[in-house]
Amino acid sequence: MMEVTRILARYLVGSRRTDIPAPVRHEAARALLNGVGCAVGSSRHETVESALAALRDFSGPPQAAVLGRSERLDILHAALINGISTHVLDYDDTHARAVHPSAPVLPALLAFAEWRKTSGADLVHAFVLGVEAECRIGLSVFPEHYERGWHITGTAGVFGAAAAAGKLLGLNEQQMTWALGIAATQSAGLREMFGSMCKSLHPGRAAQNGLTAALLASKNFTSSERAIEAPCGFAHVLSTKFDPAVITDGLGEHFELSSNMYKPYACGLVVHAAIDGCIQLRTEHRLAPEAVERMELTVCPIVLELTAKPEPQTGLEGKFSVYHAAAAAIVYGAAGEPQFSDACVRDERVVGLRRRIGITPDKSLRKTEAKILVRLKNGVTHSKHVEHALGTLQRPMSDADLEVKFRALTDGIINAQRTDELIRLCWSVDTLPDAGAIARCTAPALN
Amino acid sequence: MMEVTRILARYLVGSRRTDIPAPVRHEAARALLNGVGCAVGSSRHETVESALAALRDFSGPPQAAVLGRSERLDILHAALINGISTHVLDYDDTHARAVHPSAPVLPALLAFAEWRKTSGADLVHAFVLGVEAECRIGLSVFPEHYERGWHITGTAGVFGAAAAAGKLLGLNEQQMTWALGIAATQSAGLREMFGSMCKSLHPGRAAQNGLTAALLASKNFTSSERAIEAPCGFAHVLSTKFDPAVITDGLGEHFELSSNMYKPYACGLVVHAAIDGCIQLRTEHRLAPEAVERMELTVCPIVLELTAKPEPQTGLEGKFSVYHAAAAAIVYGAAGEPQFSDACVRDERVVGLRRRIGITPDKSLRKTEAKILVRLKNGVTHSKHVEHALGTLQRPMSDADLEVKFRALTDGIINAQRTDELIRLCWSVDTLPDAGAIARCTAPALN
Repeated sequence: MMEVTRILARYLVGSRRTDIPAPVRHEAARALLNGVGCAVGSSRHETVESALAALRDFSGPPQAAVLGRSERLDILHAALINGISTHVLDYDDTHARAVHPSAPVLPALLAFAEWRKTSGADLVHAFVLGVEAECRIGLSVFPEHYERGWHITGTAGVFGAAAAAGKLLGLNEQQMTWALGIAATQSAGLREMFGSMCKSLHPGRAAQNGLTAALLASKNFTSSERAIEAPCGFAHVLSTKFDPAVITDGLGEHFELSSNMYKPYACGLVVHAAIDGCIQLRTEHRLAPEAVERMELTVCPIVLELTAKPEPQTGLEGKFSVYHAAAAAIVYGAAGEPQFSDACVRDERVVGLRRRIGITPDKSLRKTEAKILVRLKNGVTHSKHVEHALGTLQRPMSDADLEVKFRALTDGIINAQRTDELIRLCWSVDTLPDAGAIARCTAPALN
Repeated sequence: MMEVTRILARYLVGSRRTDIPAPVRHEAARALLNGVGCAVGSSRHETVESALAALRDFSGPPQAAVLGRSERLDILHAALINGISTHVLDYDDTHARAVHPSAPVLPALLAFAEWRKTSGADLVHAFVLGVEAECRIGLSVFPEHYERGWHITGTAGVFGAAAAAGKLLGLNEQQMTWALGIAATQSAGLREMFGSMCKSLHPGRAAQNGLTAALLASKNFTSSERAIEAPCGFAHVLSTKFDPAVITDGLGEHFELSSNMYKPYACGLVVHAAIDGCIQLRTEHRLAPEAVERMELTVCPIVLELTAKPEPQTGLEGKFSVYHAAAAAIVYGAAGEPQFSDACVRDERVVGLRRRIGITPDKSLRKTEAKILVRLKNGVTHSKHVEHALGTLQRPMSDADLEVKFRALTDGIINAQRTDELIRLCWSVDTLPDAGAIARCTAPALN
């Protein structure tokens, strides 16, 4: 059996900043902007409030920011809380095949950078490597691992946080091997938790536990040296499939971060093509919902399997209703958190329109594809074929799109000046002398 | 499917102190004495030193003692470090069928009792319930879960710590159900880590994570309500076997703590019968090693599978050499940590004797059974048949035996006066107004 744990550790330790191509470094800045926006935007979420209420009495020194709040916690607790807030809206980034890459890795690094001075270039480097480790390890056991019931963002994420933090700690090969092992033996998170607060606890714990793994390894806390590939190791215990070549092939040649996607809409990916098409039609034809007699959507069958709720009653249920999402997109030209509020799902204009929507499943369509036909009361019809929804690799969100999303998320939490400054810090991360400035800048300004 | 998570939560919440029979309460005191002794005895172990060096900078307020040391940490870190130290020598208690019961549960409770005033009776009650939860959940998936590669002391232990801490926090049924769920989704620990520092990290993390689960649930942090039994829940994801009746049958009627065993010797269970017989022969016949020409041991085959090392070079290797253990038992009449030191393994008298020992496997013997034949140089022979080694349920260590073990462990770490006081506190735990006194008393006295 190939010693994949050691091969991966050797790569992580040996990688130099200059080995990371410029487009990959820019992708890290995009992930940073998106991740910080999600965390700030969720900083008052009840899941975050509950976790803070339970744990703040046990925090160590105020080493790192709770993103978007005035509280400061020790770096381990900050990583936990910020991992929760980055993921809790399910609005964070998604690797094209599996794993939400940023939520377990970024919070560990942002906290670290406030504790030990870290250049932006080093933070970017560590982030790229952390994402590489978590995605490759996750994909090496995918999809069987996920199908068995594991929430891969938690189970693989802990490796990413360990690798990234270990890089900033300057671990040697032996220590990095241990860090991956200490991560492996804390790998956890059940899909059974979907729909409860524990779903976002998974990346939070992954960030915290991965950071802990790297810290322990830096003090020569030992683990198995074959934690991923051994018969009683991660891959065989947590999956029925293991392809070690997925971890080792082309290390340093292609980067998993290049397959990262960002969500323009605050709901599951399968609804995005329909929303995208509705917003395009609204913009192109200045559609008013009252003018619409009937809408017909043709979508991949999985859209109806997951989001067929015709009459959602709460904002959360609205995320599982393609009817609501499409109607709200026509009415508001957007599908952010406000469109998935309790108020919006009860909005008369939205409710009226969603009852005039028909959905047809079509197996020939991809899950990020949709066809929309709008028949107006005046007899005119408009149609749109979205081949690839906005946010897919084929049609990525632009940097400007990401800024718009960031501003929508942080609106009302941090002021305009701080928002501008944060956007500037994220885009220029690669040249920042002190990456700790990013997390510090998310604190609401004193009035 | 029976709602076992909720049934267990309901039992834990409804149980009253007076529901626990006196012999079970006394067993809790025995486990307490044994567990505290192990933790104090290991308080300078390199594993503990490494973890403290890595994590002490992130600790919160000095709420709870690191057992046997002067440092005080927040209760979550104290639970972690004390979980490590309780288990690191593999000298802690063992349930007759699976799981080391105390290491994940006791450290969470001892830390809690220093944070919020807790009577000894309440601590005993919570401990009994925690052990009940972890053993029943562990046994419901045993042995397939263990055979798959999970270290059950970690994976089941987290439930025990959550249940015990949840009881002291006064969780209601809904919250206790969540606490078990939050525990389930943190359940982790790979057998691949055996032989590294991570083995004892498992009960440490279980103690810390279980305590965290209870604290989160107390602030209404939600989880699945069917975390143990659901298709993507603990049992089905982490095992191929699940017998829910093991969790629910006879709750409150029989107690798993009654099947708890304590190790008289600081090594794996399979060597105990041989050591026991050698010590008995030495005492009965005042054997001097120089008088022994040859020893023949007949043992269960598993003894040779696990501990056949003929020439160990280090103390740790000595634990995996039945030759060394038997020889040291003849020479020193004991098999504590000093007999598994590097020095003892190189001790000429021990080395000389162990080369005159022969071992015969015999499938008709239990693994806690051994036959010993000693042939002296003067032609006399002595023999001993140990049917059940000291420490088994059939021949438990007496309270006095546990005191002797405790004193050997704490010798040189805390002074005689503190040791006497600690023994008194443990035996009288059920009547202590403030159980926090136990952990505080383990701090080395100022000179």
